[in-house]
Amino acid sequence: MTLKKIGEFGFIKKISRGCLIRPDSIVKAIGDDAAAFTTDPARISLITTDLLVERIHFLRNAISGFDLGYKSLAVNLSDIAAMGGTARESFVSIAIPEDCPLDYLEAVYDGMKDLATKFEVNILGGDTTSSKVDLIINVVVYGTIVREELLCRDAARPGDIVCSTGFLGDSKAGLHLILNNIPADSNARRNLLRAHLRPEPHLWEGRFLARQPAVKAAIDTSDGLSSDLGHIAEQSGVGAILYADKIPVSGDLKLFCRQFNFDPVEYALSGGEDYTLLCTVSPAEAEAIAAKFEKKFKRPLFRIGEITAATEMKLKYPDGSARSIAASGWNHFKKDEGG
Amino acid sequence: MTLKKIGEFGFIKKISRGCLIRPDSIVKAIGDDAAAFTTDPARISLITTDLLVERIHFLRNAISGFDLGYKSLAVNLSDIAAMGGTARESFVSIAIPEDCPLDYLEAVYDGMKDLATKFEVNILGGDTTSSKVDLIINVVVYGTIVREELLCRDAARPGDIVCSTGFLGDSKAGLHLILNNIPADSNARRNLLRAHLRPEPHLWEGRFLARQPAVKAAIDTSDGLSSDLGHIAEQSGVGAILYADKIPVSGDLKLFCRQFNFDPVEYALSGGEDYTLLCTVSPAEAEAIAAKFEKKFKRPLFRIGEITAATEMKLKYPDGSARSIAASGWNHFKKDEGG
Repeated sequence: MTLKKIGEFGFIKKISRGCLIRPDSIVKAIGDDAAAFTTDPARISLITTDLLVERIHFLRNAISGFDLGYKSLAVNLSDIAAMGGTARESFVSIAIPEDCPLDYLEAVYDGMKDLATKFEVNILGGDTTSSKVDLIINVVVYGTIVREELLCRDAARPGDIVCSTGFLGDSKAGLHLILNNIPADSNARRNLLRAHLRPEPHLWEGRFLARQPAVKAAIDTSDGLSSDLGHIAEQSGVGAILYADKIPVSGDLKLFCRQFNFDPVEYALSGGEDYTLLCTVSPAEAEAIAAKFEKKFKRPLFRIGEITAATEMKLKYPDGSARSIAASGWNHFKKDEGG
Repeated sequence: MTLKKIGEFGFIKKISRGCLIRPDSIVKAIGDDAAAFTTDPARISLITTDLLVERIHFLRNAISGFDLGYKSLAVNLSDIAAMGGTARESFVSIAIPEDCPLDYLEAVYDGMKDLATKFEVNILGGDTTSSKVDLIINVVVYGTIVREELLCRDAARPGDIVCSTGFLGDSKAGLHLILNNIPADSNARRNLLRAHLRPEPHLWEGRFLARQPAVKAAIDTSDGLSSDLGHIAEQSGVGAILYADKIPVSGDLKLFCRQFNFDPVEYALSGGEDYTLLCTVSPAEAEAIAAKFEKKFKRPLFRIGEITAATEMKLKYPDGSARSIAASGWNHFKKDEGG
């Protein structure tokens, strides 16, 4: 079966199956000019969108269709998580080059539907079209949140404790394996690869943080710890100190760094695409919130640094020495090294 | 000034200016993980998205940046118009190849902002990234409508009068001029070119139609009259007769067709990208609604055919003869001729 044979509308029919995960409140899903749904009157609407382009964000021969679909939706859900919201509807635009097999495309949607089902998000519509050479996927996610719970980047205050909901740097290590054709022949390497190819959006963690009044600012780690914390610092008009020995590095990443002679802390700082949440918490509440988090999620809320009034970012070592850190990480035009 | 020099965040800052056209009810615009806005409790939400890919939907050397931006937003506003809705927020994802000058990109956003201002739509966020060869633009529009006014494709009933809010086929003629390097050296040709490059979304016409209880189904003419009416027919479980002498063809298109020996009715049928609205109206009310439309918009609501119980589409000529019409027009995978 080829795309040419089933045509655009045949393809839409094919991918439409299994997209309506939460049918209540849906007035029109795929198949009209726009999707239509009723909104909850007491809530704020959130919309986020991410564009993934072949040879820029992924290599088709290095990621399965399933993982590509999963990741395309995950990166958008992660943005809703970073606002503290509940993800509700998603919309997928896809531009397909002629050489892309239908099996691969169906796997893309299978990956999306798998993740959508996990978080009860509908796939409500989108656009399907062709492209000359590169596979292109744009995902939009609509979410909601009550106003009092909204987590923004500009709310960090000096003294706040900087926290991460998970390990950092694993995804960059997975990318290193892919780009250097290093076989994923151990559990550690398979875990790193999975961190890069199939990131888990921290939606439940985001909802938990949003319900704690002591949690101030939040962002997801898509560009890299230093870059993402830099966004919070810049928008809040503050600075930050990170503690090198507190930065959460997984056992898998430690092993990888020993094997390839990398510094795990540098990896975590410049990583990107980890999709954990960074947040800042009032110092008086940080310990209690970390304990509640650990009880709920069976893993720590890592406290990795502190917000400062001085508008600079520093990394402090256990011996008391410190160095300045610039916002590094992913920048699509400047071509820095990064996740 | 190059993109490389200003970087992704510099570019975002540059394009962010002038995007917030309607600031009330906006909680967070560009610059956080997702845009945040409060929704009107009494309304249905509409979301539509369209992906435009270079060398598939446009040729960069044949369309100005301004027109490309204008059209990218227009095709999405047209989808909201086809539901009868009010467009409120928009989101722009763009993937930029290295050879694309910043001037061109700024003109893209200028074109969007021009149209956004006309219809009081905010540009609230999006994604900016790079691409290897093709410029890629994905636009999302969020709109609202009260439930009773929503216009869908599946509500046409036998006997309904089929109407178009404007001329058909002009855009395809403009495309013909571009693809064949025919100079736009007359007013007529400039008008046809403009119809293709800078289509006007019929949002006000859509609102007018949505407020008339006798208006049943609606769709915008993006794929072509026969194809778009085919969508209404298929989803409503009906058929249609179109009257060849009633199909609205502009004087410019008639002149063009005489010069190049084309049949204007065939052009209108298979055109696509006209972005007028097709709707079906209860027969008893059609004349009164057309009169009201003409009074309001100073141009006719063209009554071009009739919905039938028989599930086929026919074109009837003034001499009484008829021929079957298939849903033709644009199909991205099947590569039919079309708009």
